[in-house]
Amino acid sequence: MSSLRSISELSIADRTLPPSRTYAVLGTGALGGFYGARLQQAGCEVHFLLHRDYDYVRQHGLVIKSIDGDFVLPQVHAHQAAHQMPPCDVVLVALKTTQNHLLPDLLPPVLKPNGVVLVLQNGLDIETAVAEIVGADRVMGGLCFLCSNKTAPGQIHHLDYKQITLGDYALHYAPCGVTKRMQQIAADFEQAGIPIELSADLLLARWKKLVWNIPFNGLSVVLNATTQQMMADESIRSLAEQLMQEVVAGAAASGAWANSQAGIPQSDDRQISPTFIQTMLDYTTKMKPYRTSMKIDYDEQRPLEVEAIFGNPLRMAMQAKLQLPRIQMLYQQLQFLDRQNRSQQQGASH
Amino acid sequence: MSSLRSISELSIADRTLPPSRTYAVLGTGALGGFYGARLQQAGCEVHFLLHRDYDYVRQHGLVIKSIDGDFVLPQVHAHQAAHQMPPCDVVLVALKTTQNHLLPDLLPPVLKPNGVVLVLQNGLDIETAVAEIVGADRVMGGLCFLCSNKTAPGQIHHLDYKQITLGDYALHYAPCGVTKRMQQIAADFEQAGIPIELSADLLLARWKKLVWNIPFNGLSVVLNATTQQMMADESIRSLAEQLMQEVVAGAAASGAWANSQAGIPQSDDRQISPTFIQTMLDYTTKMKPYRTSMKIDYDEQRPLEVEAIFGNPLRMAMQAKLQLPRIQMLYQQLQFLDRQNRSQQQGASH
Repeated sequence: MSSLRSISELSIADRTLPPSRTYAVLGTGALGGFYGARLQQAGCEVHFLLHRDYDYVRQHGLVIKSIDGDFVLPQVHAHQAAHQMPPCDVVLVALKTTQNHLLPDLLPPVLKPNGVVLVLQNGLDIETAVAEIVGADRVMGGLCFLCSNKTAPGQIHHLDYKQITLGDYALHYAPCGVTKRMQQIAADFEQAGIPIELSADLLLARWKKLVWNIPFNGLSVVLNATTQQMMADESIRSLAEQLMQEVVAGAAASGAWANSQAGIPQSDDRQISPTFIQTMLDYTTKMKPYRTSMKIDYDEQRPLEVEAIFGNPLRMAMQAKLQLPRIQMLYQQLQFLDRQNRSQQQGASH
Repeated sequence: MSSLRSISELSIADRTLPPSRTYAVLGTGALGGFYGARLQQAGCEVHFLLHRDYDYVRQHGLVIKSIDGDFVLPQVHAHQAAHQMPPCDVVLVALKTTQNHLLPDLLPPVLKPNGVVLVLQNGLDIETAVAEIVGADRVMGGLCFLCSNKTAPGQIHHLDYKQITLGDYALHYAPCGVTKRMQQIAADFEQAGIPIELSADLLLARWKKLVWNIPFNGLSVVLNATTQQMMADESIRSLAEQLMQEVVAGAAASGAWANSQAGIPQSDDRQISPTFIQTMLDYTTKMKPYRTSMKIDYDEQRPLEVEAIFGNPLRMAMQAKLQLPRIQMLYQQLQFLDRQNRSQQQGASH
């Protein structure tokens, strides 16, 4: 990494936030509600944006049921609109990516001039869109490994995992190394009991998460299946592995493309190790039977995060002149199923 | 074709059947029952193999409801076992390909020494398996364009189409041209009101039919959709076209491979014209909304013809060193769904 660091990280490494940081949570659901509540519990000032649950949470606060211990926050800073919130140092984007058309209105009022937006969403290339709104030096990304549900307004059930991988962002996903503000935010989360991993290369970290998300989120919807059913079938084990190989190829191609855009010398360290595929397959075999988040969205007739998880990676690979036929086919199938699913919902609401 | 004909067709072109031909029908369902009944109505001696419907048809004969006019055959030659049938000149294989493990027992007793097995099934490479049972010079293939259902024991409803494309078979699918026995069988079917097209290249004819069957049979099951719903969606129109392109590539590669196996010079006439893809897409757009035969099988929890329609074409392409990633992915998805579907059926029968 030394060659990369010398070129791209001089200004980035020094990015800092003030000694005591205020937080805004956009999207107070299973994910944003959980992390925001833990930060407040640990002593941070946290402001929550709410929509349908606003009245309830304003009156009753947040109730967290968690494998780490249940707790209640009877009073939280609940807000109904972004322009009523105070500007904060760190803005957690915890909406579903299908709501990201709202970000140009939501982000500017809640972000301090020297603050940072931390995108805690699935998929790829969301930071680029956020950078167009707030500037490339005010964006970071976080990958959440969290199993959590919202069970009722203001009620969150944290079932398993909680770790976040943090990475800083620069134009064209130039690798940023470990910046000071990453360490500052990590300190706040770790104070709140959330383990943090620091990634020197956000693009690579996002592709790595897709190694699991692309096959299993996608196929669980198309095949109406749990991870256990898929892993028990030799055809689907093969297909999952082939999809993972396409993700690994996409990561390498888009890492090289990003380097060329940022004027950085090519290197091997923006690639996913091929052994990571077997690690993910073994991990999935050993998991409890699991209904993926995309399958839950589908079953609840919510819009699927098809663009963030499938469309954006395909477009990044295509920029690098790489076709990923199986991922593209899964994307096409999911687009169809998502449209059918939502048109049925509209039909049912009449 | 002149160069091909001179090498491979000298002995094949003269293959003949006796002046008056007897027929056996293996699989007296929507397809075998319809064509067999029409042949008997036109004066041929036809022997029907029946299983569950044997008692009913022996007593009541066959009842055909057809867009061409309804008719009843009060008496037919119904048989319960192949070894009780007389050897015939032409044996129509009208079982589902999922029953083809029965053919080594069924075929030898019903086929005359100079007779021929006419494989009226979907998919590819079935003739090769039949040739291993009865010899390569006693096999032909037929592609049925027929819309027909069995509505009750001995009751068949013919809804639309009826044409058959006939092609003769030689080892490694060497092109056979138009043989005398093709013309003889064509004469019998045309006497019975069934239009016949004669194909000089059975392998090419089978691949051409797959241009439609692979995308629409496969995707209709995976996406739980009619042809109309699929053609109305731009993602699935693109995917169908990409799958068709893979079929066209598979046809070209396996035609070239078959030529090399048969010691025939390479030529362009074993390829599907690229314009055929657009023709098939336009044709599908204009069709009535249609539930494909594979979707009907799936909905009725019957085994899917996954190997004949997907597995065999993939294996032929792989022999020719060609990967077809989208067709392979569809094959893997269908294998999974077929297995799940049948295990649910077994669960339900307990």
